[in-house]
Amino acid sequence: MHSIDLNCDMGESFGSWKMGNDLQIMDYVSSVNIACGFHAGDADTMRKTVAAATEKNVAIGAHPGFPDLQGFGRRNMQLSPEEVYNIILYQIGALSAFVKVAGNRLHHVKPHGALYNMAAKDSSLSSAIAQAIKDFDPSLIVYGLSGSFLISESQKLGLKTASEVFADRTYQQDGTLTPRNQPFALIEDTTKSLEQVVKMVEEQQVVTTENIPVPIQADTICIHGDGKHAVDFAQAINKLFREHSITIQAI
Amino acid sequence: MHSIDLNCDMGESFGSWKMGNDLQIMDYVSSVNIACGFHAGDADTMRKTVAAATEKNVAIGAHPGFPDLQGFGRRNMQLSPEEVYNIILYQIGALSAFVKVAGNRLHHVKPHGALYNMAAKDSSLSSAIAQAIKDFDPSLIVYGLSGSFLISESQKLGLKTASEVFADRTYQQDGTLTPRNQPFALIEDTTKSLEQVVKMVEEQQVVTTENIPVPIQADTICIHGDGKHAVDFAQAINKLFREHSITIQAI
Amino acid sequence: MHSIDLNCDMGESFGSWKMGNDLQIMDYVSSVNIACGFHAGDADTMRKTVAAATEKNVAIGAHPGFPDLQGFGRRNMQLSPEEVYNIILYQIGALSAFVKVAGNRLHHVKPHGALYNMAAKDSSLSSAIAQAIKDFDPSLIVYGLSGSFLISESQKLGLKTASEVFADRTYQQDGTLTPRNQPFALIEDTTKSLEQVVKMVEEQQVVTTENIPVPIQADTICIHGDGKHAVDFAQAINKLFREHSITIQAI
Amino acid sequence: MHSIDLNCDMGESFGSWKMGNDLQIMDYVSSVNIACGFHAGDADTMRKTVAAATEKNVAIGAHPGFPDLQGFGRRNMQLSPEEVYNIILYQIGALSAFVKVAGNRLHHVKPHGALYNMAAKDSSLSSAIAQAIKDFDPSLIVYGLSGSFLISESQKLGLKTASEVFADRTYQQDGTLTPRNQPFALIEDTTKSLEQVVKMVEEQQVVTTENIPVPIQADTICIHGDGKHAVDFAQAINKLFREHSITIQAI
Repeated sequence: MHSIDLNCDMGESFGSWKMGNDLQIMDYVSSVNIACGFHAGDADTMRKTVAAATEKNVAIGAHPGFPDLQGFGRRNMQLSPEEVYNIILYQIGALSAFVKVAGNRLHHVKPHGALYNMAAKDSSLSSAIAQAIKDFDPSLIVYGLSGSFLISESQKLGLKTASEVFADRTYQQDGTLTPRNQPFALIEDTTKSLEQVVKMVEEQQVVTTENIPVPIQADTICIHGDGKHAVDFAQAINKLFREHSITIQAI
Repeated sequence: MHSIDLNCDMGESFGSWKMGNDLQIMDYVSSVNIACGFHAGDADTMRKTVAAATEKNVAIGAHPGFPDLQGFGRRNMQLSPEEVYNIILYQIGALSAFVKVAGNRLHHVKPHGALYNMAAKDSSLSSAIAQAIKDFDPSLIVYGLSGSFLISESQKLGLKTASEVFADRTYQQDGTLTPRNQPFALIEDTTKSLEQVVKMVEEQQVVTTENIPVPIQADTICIHGDGKHAVDFAQAINKLFREHSITIQAI
Repeated sequence: MHSIDLNCDMGESFGSWKMGNDLQIMDYVSSVNIACGFHAGDADTMRKTVAAATEKNVAIGAHPGFPDLQGFGRRNMQLSPEEVYNIILYQIGALSAFVKVAGNRLHHVKPHGALYNMAAKDSSLSSAIAQAIKDFDPSLIVYGLSGSFLISESQKLGLKTASEVFADRTYQQDGTLTPRNQPFALIEDTTKSLEQVVKMVEEQQVVTTENIPVPIQADTICIHGDGKHAVDFAQAINKLFREHSITIQAI
Repeated sequence: MHSIDLNCDMGESFGSWKMGNDLQIMDYVSSVNIACGFHAGDADTMRKTVAAATEKNVAIGAHPGFPDLQGFGRRNMQLSPEEVYNIILYQIGALSAFVKVAGNRLHHVKPHGALYNMAAKDSSLSSAIAQAIKDFDPSLIVYGLSGSFLISESQKLGLKTASEVFADRTYQQDGTLTPRNQPFALIEDTTKSLEQVVKMVEEQQVVTTENIPVPIQADTICIHGDGKHAVDFAQAINKLFREHSITIQAI
C-alpha cells in the first residue's frame, strides 16, 4: 500500500489582506508550509495558522522566503549564501516560537518561491539553506524540488528530505519541470493532473510531454491553496487516493 | 559585597548603516540586549552580534521593539495587547535561533524604546509581554523599568525580573524617572551620574532632584552604547565599581 | 437643486493581495482617494488605479497614511508635525507623478485612517498636513472630517476644503461622530443610513442618537469600497439621489 | 576650456542611521543624486538634503533604486520593465515634491546601485527607465554609465543624457568597466585616479589596464561621498581641475 504527503502553502495573509482558504484546505492535506513574515504572513497570521494546524493535526513546516513583500517572494534576489543562511535561520526561529507556544513541534522547512527555484539550481544556496536548517534542528525534514540541489545538498549534510512533485506541471526527460515559458508546461486538465499524480505515487514515474516515461522521486505533492478551485482539487485528489488505497500522511 | 548587572543595547546596525561600538562596549558589561529586526538590526547583524557576545561571555537578551525601522522603535504605536504578544514572540523566536546556533542560551528579554515606556505604564501591555516571554521560556528574566508594570506583571506570572535603573536620569519621589520634558531630567555631569549609580547599588536608594532619598530596586544598570563617550563612561563605571568592590555580573 | 460629492478609498491592493471593488465602485462615485504606498497600495496599483479613474472621469485624490502596512494605517503612531508634513509631501508627490503621466490633474488630498482621526482632534498635526498640501499645490482641496481641525486649519491657510460626512455613523450633539466604542455608533440599517444622507445633503442637518437635530456641513460623503455590500450600497445611494434630484459631482 | 560635471550620491541616511558627509561634499560638486526612500533615505532626510542642495546651489537629481533597504539597493532583483517603470516614477515623483516645495527644479535622474548596473546591460530595463523619466518630465537629464544601454535608450527617446565615468575604476578595450571580480578593477592610487580623470575630460580618452588608449564619453564624474577620504578626494579633484582650467559645472 502506498503512502504520500500532501502539502500546501498557508498563512499567506498579511495584515488586512486575506489570501487562501487555509481552514478548508487543512482538512485535505497532511502538512502545511507557513509563511514567516518576509514574503507573506505576519506575527498575527502565524499565530492563528499554527493554532489551526495544531488543532487539525497537520504537520507544520516553516516556509521562509526572500524579504520582498510586494513581490510575494517570487522575484529573484541576488543574496549571498551567508545572507540566505541568516534569513532562513531568522524565519525558522520566528515560526518555531509560535509552534512551541502552541505545544507543537516544527516538522519541516520548505523554501518559498524564487528562493525555492534559485536554490534548486544552485548548490551553494542549497548548501546554505540546508546548513541553517541542520544547525537549528537536525531532525527537521527539508522539502525541495525532486531532483534538485536542495535535496542533494541536504542529504549530504545528513538531513532527511522530502522530494516534492507537482500535480499540475509537466516534466522533461531529465526529470526537471518544463519551464513555464515553454509550451505544455502546465497541465490544465484536472483529470490528467490527477492521473499524473497517481502514477508518480504508485510507480515513481512520470510521462514527459514527448510521451516518454522517466523515473521520479515523489515523497510529497504540492497542492495550491489559493484560487477558486483549490478546495475542489484538494477534495478530488483525496477521493482518488482513497480509491487507489493511497494513504495521505506526513513523512 | 555588592553585585550588579550592567546591560547595553546592541546589534542596532542595519544593512549598510552602522550604529554603536558593540565590540568595545562588550568588554565592560555583563549583559547585552540585541535588536531583533523590527526597530533595528537584521539577520546578518543578529548573527554577528550573538557570536561576539558568546565569545566575550556576556549574557544575551532579546530586545524586541515596535515594527518601525525609520522611527527606531521610539515612536508610540497603538497596538493591541494581542498584537504585542505576537510581535514579542516573533522577535524572541528569531533571535533565539541565532543564540541556539551559537551554542548559547537566551538569558533575558528587554522591550525597546516606545514599547518599553508604554508597557511601563500599561498593565495590559505588560501582561501581554510577560505572557509571551513565559509561554516561550519561563526561565527567561524580564528586564523592565524599576517600579513599572512590566516588573509587577512579570512577577505575577512567576517570572524572574531585573529592575532596571539609569545612571544618567534623575528620579522623582515616587521612584519614577523625571520625565524628559521637565527640568533636571538628565544628569549631564559624569561624576554625579557615577555617584548616583553607586548609591543605588550599595544602598538601594536614590536622591531626588529635591534632595530627598527614596528607596529604589536596582538589579541592572543600562549603559548607552552609542555616542562618542559611551566607551569612556563604560570604563569609568567599571573602574569605580572595582574601587567599591562591586562585582559586575549578570543575574 | 442639491449637489454632493461621493468619495471612496481605492487602490488599496498591495502586491499579490487584492482589496476592494475599485472598477465597479468607480461607476457610482465622483471622486476617489488613492492609497500612496505607506498603509496600502504600491507603484503598480497606483498606476492602474489612476489610469482607471482617469478613464472613468472621476476626480483623483491622494490618500496618504502612516507608514504601517501591516496595520493598514489604522494604528495611531506618534509622529511629530514635521514628520507628518514630510510623509504627506512624499506621498502626494509619488501619486501626483502617476496622475501627471496619465494626463490628469490631482484634485484633492484626504488623509487616511489613524492619521485622519488623529489630525481631526489635533490642530498641530492638521496644520502640518494643510501646510504640506499648500506648499505642494495650493489649488488642491483638503478632504477632512466635518467640523474637525483639519478643516479649520486648512481654511486658515486659505485652502479649499470638503467637509466629509459618513452615511453609516451616528452623530453627537456637538456635531462629532459617536465614538465606535459607544452604543449606536454605527447605523446598520441601510434605509436609515440613506435617510440620514439625504437629510444631510438637503437640510445640512443630522439627527443625533437622542433625536436632536444639529447642523452639519456636508460637502462629500464617504462610501466604503470593500465588503460584500459595497457595490449594492453605492447603487442604492445613486438611485436615491436621482429620485431626490441630488447631483453627484466632485467639488 | 573644458568643463565637467562632478556628481555625488547623497541623502543616504535613514531614520536614526547616518551615512555620508553630505554638507561637506556639497561644496565640491556640481550635482547631487538624492536617494528616494527605497534603498536609502526617508522623507525627513530627503527634505533636509534638498534644502541643503538648494542653498548650496548644486543641481538636484533623483536617485531611485530597488525596494531593498537592507541590501542598500545593491542586490540584483528581477523586476519586470513595467515594475521598474512604476518604481522609477514613484520615486521621482516623491523627490520632486520636496524639490518643488524648496522652490527648486529637478535637474536629472540617476538610477542607483544594482538597478544602474542591470539597466546598463539590459535595453528593456533601460527603455522602461527612460520612458518613465520622459513621461514625467522630458527636460530631465538621464545620468547613466558611459557607453551603456541607459544612455542609448534615453537618446532614442530624445532625452538629454550625461555619460558617467568613474575616477577609481579601470576600463576595458570596449570602453566598459573592468568587472570588480577581476584584477586591477579598482584604482587605489589617488594620483593615478586623478590622472585618469583629467585625461578623460581633456582628451575624452582612457588608458586600459593593457595600456591601450580608448575613446570614452565623459560628461559627469561620480565622486564617492562616504568613507574617510571622501572629502579629501573631493578637494584634490577640485584643486587639480582648477590647475587644468577645467570648470566644474552641472550640464
